[in-house]
Amino acid sequence: MTNLTLALDAMGGDFGPRITVPATLQALRLYPFLHVIMVGDRSQIEPLLSHLESDILSRIELVHTTEVVKMCDRPVHALRNCKQSSMRLAIELVRDKKAQACLSAGNTGALMAISKVLLKTLPGIDRPALVSCLPAVNHKPVYLLDLGANVSCCSETLFQFAVMGSVLCEAVDKNPAPKVALLNVGIEEIKGNDQVQQAGQLLQQSPQLNYAGFIEGDAIYSGNVDVIVCDGFVGNITLKTSEGIARLLVHQLKKGLTQGFFVRLLAKLIAPRINSVLNQMNPDHYNGASLIGLRGIVVKSHGSADESAYLQAISLAVTEAQRRLPKMIEERLESILLDINN
Amino acid sequence: MTNLTLALDAMGGDFGPRITVPATLQALRLYPFLHVIMVGDRSQIEPLLSHLESDILSRIELVHTTEVVKMCDRPVHALRNCKQSSMRLAIELVRDKKAQACLSAGNTGALMAISKVLLKTLPGIDRPALVSCLPAVNHKPVYLLDLGANVSCCSETLFQFAVMGSVLCEAVDKNPAPKVALLNVGIEEIKGNDQVQQAGQLLQQSPQLNYAGFIEGDAIYSGNVDVIVCDGFVGNITLKTSEGIARLLVHQLKKGLTQGFFVRLLAKLIAPRINSVLNQMNPDHYNGASLIGLRGIVVKSHGSADESAYLQAISLAVTEAQRRLPKMIEERLESILLDINN
Repeated sequence: MTNLTLALDAMGGDFGPRITVPATLQALRLYPFLHVIMVGDRSQIEPLLSHLESDILSRIELVHTTEVVKMCDRPVHALRNCKQSSMRLAIELVRDKKAQACLSAGNTGALMAISKVLLKTLPGIDRPALVSCLPAVNHKPVYLLDLGANVSCCSETLFQFAVMGSVLCEAVDKNPAPKVALLNVGIEEIKGNDQVQQAGQLLQQSPQLNYAGFIEGDAIYSGNVDVIVCDGFVGNITLKTSEGIARLLVHQLKKGLTQGFFVRLLAKLIAPRINSVLNQMNPDHYNGASLIGLRGIVVKSHGSADESAYLQAISLAVTEAQRRLPKMIEERLESILLDINN
Repeated sequence: MTNLTLALDAMGGDFGPRITVPATLQALRLYPFLHVIMVGDRSQIEPLLSHLESDILSRIELVHTTEVVKMCDRPVHALRNCKQSSMRLAIELVRDKKAQACLSAGNTGALMAISKVLLKTLPGIDRPALVSCLPAVNHKPVYLLDLGANVSCCSETLFQFAVMGSVLCEAVDKNPAPKVALLNVGIEEIKGNDQVQQAGQLLQQSPQLNYAGFIEGDAIYSGNVDVIVCDGFVGNITLKTSEGIARLLVHQLKKGLTQGFFVRLLAKLIAPRINSVLNQMNPDHYNGASLIGLRGIVVKSHGSADESAYLQAISLAVTEAQRRLPKMIEERLESILLDINN
């Protein structure tokens, strides 16, 4: 396996190096070909690196900075003022080809803004999209984009998201013809707003994509399609609503199963089964959203990710770097656009 | 209790009179003050009314028609052509003051279009909204609107929805100061699209409303607010996504708890507890969405509603008629608008 270098914003997220460093060490043990450049405050990171095996230590580089993009910083502010922030320096390492991908658990808006300016979008792509993989029936993954990087999108942008989502699914899941759908209020052609209807027409004219038409909210988790496209306003609310209702169900179930001695006892005996279902729905187990459409790889972790969730996000960055995702998207998009124009 | 008359589109829904008639008979037994006018095909309805107590029979009137709005009919088509349909005749009974409310499980778009034209919107309301009550933590209901009647909305329309939702919650739940929130991609003031931001400003200027700011998707079911406002595109997808993920969890849980003899046995013993939670999340138990903002009461049942779900929707129509909801909304809106303009 060819060596691969990731740049990590070690300071991002709710817990900073306390989570990002141990998770990174796990990743280094898991992937012998992996090198990392940790960007952040030396005084917080170095104590977490003591007593390390020399093999692991030799694959870690540290770039020191004390500046951090705060969660409440506006994207424009972060872009203009946080020039020495751990987030920006990590993205610069990708821009300067010193790393093949970068990862941050920090402020999403700032990550999007800085990445877009430093890395630029691919030819044919107007705006990067935030995409993540959700659990569907039978553990079949489904990609949902955009998750909030673009609160409003024209039909052309939705079309580009569909192409990018399809290529991502091809690359990561080795799915030769991912089924792509547009999220809408009904499956009939007459349903929805102008953007969705026009995006549907564009997709129908693209024989290279496996377009499956409109899909409703209740079919997202059915496992019938592989990629679901919507604007960032809808996608963000859809994702968070799913997390909310899953949490409500878990809460109610736990409450129902802890009232009464007999019920509590029986529930305890089958707790592993119940927990395995609940864990499957836990957003942390699907951690790692990718900013795709850029000329470099940027992965976003949940700010509240724990060690294993952060490791998930690292693994996603590794997979995308191994597959050279931006190059794949660029080539497929070029070919699809040529096809439409002819 | 004053007598009250409901007009029922007996033909609407996936099962027509087979569900609507028995559910109506249950309602008549439950509410001794209730009279109903069933609109539909006499040959299908009358056989279901045989051997009835005379008290029940005396409170049923039948308006015969064989025309039905089909689920695939476009709203404009239904409006122009289905002049003798069971749906339209039921709405006309409300317009002509022969019934205090009407109920249909038929085509939502057609119901919205015909209701708007026949009943007209209240003064100060541009567009009716479809609203439903969802289950939150601790069985606290939360009203979500719009659920799909208006795929795109300006800030003024969102503001009107907030007023209507607040008055609905006051009327139905006797909540003196419902907390109203706007569904958005973040809780910070800078977040969201123009419509949501401007609607937020309008709501901040309305001291008569208990405006709680923006809310994210994962807080819908938290029980922290009483009314959540969004456009129909977002609302429809949010509602259906919730149903989808609830169904996925139920599916996974059932699968997990039926593999292996020991697990199956234990799960069976605590099945009532598990089922009570799952039933609570069952959309049928929250059946009945209201088209509010009209000069009459129109309630929509799920097309797939079973008898008990349809009964829920009848009860909702009864409650709204008892509280004279349109009048309440009209008065509150007038007072709120006066307050803003002064």
